Amino acid sequence: MRKPRILITNDDGVFAPGIRHLWNAVNEMADVTVVAPAFEQSATSLSITVRSPLSIAKADWYSPKGPVWSVSGTPSDCVKLALTVILPEQPDLIISGVNRGNNAGRNVLYSGTVAAVIEGIMHNIPGIAFSLDGEEHSNYDGTEKHIQQIIRYILQHPLPSGTFLNVNFPQHSVDGIKGIRMARQGKEFWVENPECRSHPKGHSYYWLGIKLAKFQEHEDSDISLLEKGFATAVPIHVGELTDIVHVNNHRKIFEEFVN
Amino acid sequence: MRKPRILITNDDGVFAPGIRHLWNAVNEMADVTVVAPAFEQSATSLSITVRSPLSIAKADWYSPKGPVWSVSGTPSDCVKLALTVILPEQPDLIISGVNRGNNAGRNVLYSGTVAAVIEGIMHNIPGIAFSLDGEEHSNYDGTEKHIQQIIRYILQHPLPSGTFLNVNFPQHSVDGIKGIRMARQGKEFWVENPECRSHPKGHSYYWLGIKLAKFQEHEDSDISLLEKGFATAVPIHVGELTDIVHVNNHRKIFEEFVN
Repeated sequence: MRKPRILITNDDGVFAPGIRHLWNAVNEMADVTVVAPAFEQSATSLSITVRSPLSIAKADWYSPKGPVWSVSGTPSDCVKLALTVILPEQPDLIISGVNRGNNAGRNVLYSGTVAAVIEGIMHNIPGIAFSLDGEEHSNYDGTEKHIQQIIRYILQHPLPSGTFLNVNFPQHSVDGIKGIRMARQGKEFWVENPECRSHPKGHSYYWLGIKLAKFQEHEDSDISLLEKGFATAVPIHVGELTDIVHVNNHRKIFEEFVN
Repeated sequence: MRKPRILITNDDGVFAPGIRHLWNAVNEMADVTVVAPAFEQSATSLSITVRSPLSIAKADWYSPKGPVWSVSGTPSDCVKLALTVILPEQPDLIISGVNRGNNAGRNVLYSGTVAAVIEGIMHNIPGIAFSLDGEEHSNYDGTEKHIQQIIRYILQHPLPSGTFLNVNFPQHSVDGIKGIRMARQGKEFWVENPECRSHPKGHSYYWLGIKLAKFQEHEDSDISLLEKGFATAVPIHVGELTDIVHVNNHRKIFEEFVN
């Protein structure tokens, strides 16, 4: 039986530590190709590069050796060029991460890590996004055995079309992870927290800044469970987003008003 | 009664033609502020600028005169800085566009025009995205009276929390628009279509390129109705994206496998 073909990407860039741990977790079980951004692309969402050319280059990880490519664009660009230019065949699975910092709750909409997996979903390729809470002093090593097991599960139990898995590990996961829960998407997200600075020439500029917007969260949400020390796996569906109830109830009055 | 406060933005940039038509459509009925990208930001999705500083500057439209600001970032950055730095009070409505080219079907996920409205939804502010099909020779003038009427409708009949309206006008709308329909989101989207080029020094680079991915579309979809010459208004809901059915059916087997 042939090994599954796995495409690995991320948004922290091809030389970020997290992506090495994804590689370690799956290199023996799968036929792996890495195509990741040449430069950090955090919070680029499903952005694609339409006004600049893109370079594809071999990236030298020194060790391990393997097919590792960098693309001078976004995570979504990486997936698009992997599927059309770099890979000889469609992958069976796209995995993205391990991101530095969580992508739980509504941050899935801003995250480049998650966007790479959404790009796969647009092409009907299953995917899993992995992120590790806590931007510093977090331990990626402890995530590898869990990543392996989650990927084995998904290869054996495919997700429905249009659905991917968004996995977050709690801070310092190796020391105190309480288990892995299938969870619901929480509401928390990073809102702006701008700070003004003064340029040496005198004019002002801003750093957008971010801070967590907190909400009352469902006890089964990824946000609640991460806070309690669980890793979380949320099946996220990217399908038709129409508010069908609204269409059914308001189509007539809307069309009478505007026509 | 005070006029409604409307924030206008786009992704084609503060000096693009479409945004002037939005202004013309609403300037008399509303208290309007424009905060739009200094440079074109097409296909930047819900990208936010976290690694570079942002400048806010007055933009001189020459005519009309009014509060018009440029931000050296993405549509989402514009909304975030408008809400926290530029506007004295929260707007009642965010309108974005008129985009050069359609943002129908699944292109809502890539569009910067739509992302600005999604950013508003994250802050519980209602919004409408406007786009005009056909990248050249399209007539924005013909859209103004329809834009006015759609905005009047939404101000009188607020959308449910988490739902915004995604409006697309067909090509050459002034000549042959058949009417405005409340529609469902179609499946069509722009996929990559990369083309290789040779640098003068000899190495290769790529243009990502785009082409329409076509699908069997619902007769009530925006894609089908635009092709028939109707303008379309799709209520899009950005809420919890959890695949709840999957959670309910698979939580137990997943947690047994991975723990």
